[in-house]
Amino acid sequence: MSTTDLDTARRIFAAAPFIADLGIEPVAVAPGECESTLVLQPRHLQHTGQVHAGVVTTLADHTAGAAAQTLVRGEGFVVTAELKLSLLRPARGERLICRASVLKSGRQLMFTEAEVHCLRHGESHLVAKLSATMAVATPKE
Amino acid sequence: MSTTDLDTARRIFAAAPFIADLGIEPVAVAPGECESTLVLQPRHLQHTGQVHAGVVTTLADHTAGAAAQTLVRGEGFVVTAELKLSLLRPARGERLICRASVLKSGRQLMFTEAEVHCLRHGESHLVAKLSATMAVATPKE
Amino acid sequence: MSTTDLDTARRIFAAAPFIADLGIEPVAVAPGECESTLVLQPRHLQHTGQVHAGVVTTLADHTAGAAAQTLVRGEGFVVTAELKLSLLRPARGERLICRASVLKSGRQLMFTEAEVHCLRHGESHLVAKLSATMAVATPKE
Amino acid sequence: MSTTDLDTARRIFAAAPFIADLGIEPVAVAPGECESTLVLQPRHLQHTGQVHAGVVTTLADHTAGAAAQTLVRGEGFVVTAELKLSLLRPARGERLICRASVLKSGRQLMFTEAEVHCLRHGESHLVAKLSATMAVATPKE
Repeated sequence: MSTTDLDTARRIFAAAPFIADLGIEPVAVAPGECESTLVLQPRHLQHTGQVHAGVVTTLADHTAGAAAQTLVRGEGFVVTAELKLSLLRPARGERLICRASVLKSGRQLMFTEAEVHCLRHGESHLVAKLSATMAVATPKE
Repeated sequence: MSTTDLDTARRIFAAAPFIADLGIEPVAVAPGECESTLVLQPRHLQHTGQVHAGVVTTLADHTAGAAAQTLVRGEGFVVTAELKLSLLRPARGERLICRASVLKSGRQLMFTEAEVHCLRHGESHLVAKLSATMAVATPKE
Repeated sequence: MSTTDLDTARRIFAAAPFIADLGIEPVAVAPGECESTLVLQPRHLQHTGQVHAGVVTTLADHTAGAAAQTLVRGEGFVVTAELKLSLLRPARGERLICRASVLKSGRQLMFTEAEVHCLRHGESHLVAKLSATMAVATPKE
Repeated sequence: MSTTDLDTARRIFAAAPFIADLGIEPVAVAPGECESTLVLQPRHLQHTGQVHAGVVTTLADHTAGAAAQTLVRGEGFVVTAELKLSLLRPARGERLICRASVLKSGRQLMFTEAEVHCLRHGESHLVAKLSATMAVATPKE
């Protein structure tokens, strides 16, 4: 991972209005990998006080897409075809951290995964696991 | 569906900070069913101009949870155990509409589905399909 | 659906060794749709006496693939990229019936669904629901 | 893993008619983990010559269930609530090997994963990844 790559990732994350609005930021990128983080705010929560599944999914999906994008050659860009998220534990704490990687890279499809951890009182807990299929689209389509 | 039920649903949706922040509102509820809507704003989008998958997932997941909640007896409440979302078409338009229903209701698990349509220039397009498993939790747990 | 189409489907099902070995047969095909059936035998079961999830998945996946194949133009053929199966109820009875359809058809991807019913003592019960993404491959690949 | 545990696993695998019929056998068990194998035969294939997705799903699902079962206390037994399988590469070769583990163990739900490798000419290839939710049922239910 070079500083340049992370700068590129920061521009890409900042260019997606929903990601910028939530406050999700990349912290590291490498070929086939991306790590991101979100400082939790009250507006990210369910009525029960835990982080809404939609916030966790957004973080995991976008980070997995960024990991896949690092492996696309030429002008293609990845779009999520489908995603599955398993919610292992309620997420409560100060910050979410997501690490995504590409399980299998192909010309048309990329199979990705992501783990989401929640930091609470200095301890990290695995709260969700994503499995998502990304399709590689080309600008002409 | 009675007016009372819809009022209850409105209070529940408004009580979840992330749902209120996005602007998602219920429009109809019935036993095992819920319909909701979201007026699209620029902050809901990807950098490509289409609605972010995280917004679609949040709408579908929350509406499916509300559909399941109508069938819970006693003090239990539903939490999402896992969800799968298929993104059939890019969502671009003025408004999303989601219709969720319970496929199978059990004491411990509820299997739910939801369809998300996007309204554009007066036409409705099916843009996503959700399949989600809800677990019925009790306050003591 | 013409008789010719069903004959073609029968040849295709019979040509797949695992499908022929299990005893799965198509009963109807139409553009974007396929229906199939399996007469249950003791070897299809779990140790608990219910049909094994693997049998249900095989039936649903193959029938969904056949539904998608009806919409492929030219020499392409569909392969399953990923599948999700929700097991709604234990399947016990004399026969499984599966109805699959294409939710969205594209050049590269087909989104499919299938419902599996179990016939027991003359009554039909919905036992499983499939959501599967099919990729369209070409012979050269 | 003790020899006794593996003997127990062998009895359990042999007691499930569909698993015995296919030829799936456990090779190792440990708390929260299970490994199994299947020597491939012509009847396990698609018409294209690759292993049928139904065979891969059966292997992955059953092995994940066995991994979860090792963590159940008392008389409960696990049943698959839902499963997702990503088919990363076509499986062609002599043997499948599956390694499953429990990602999160709860009283009502167990979140499991499994990887399936295919051995061909002495090389191992990752061909599929499973994510499955297991429900813990009790004999009375």
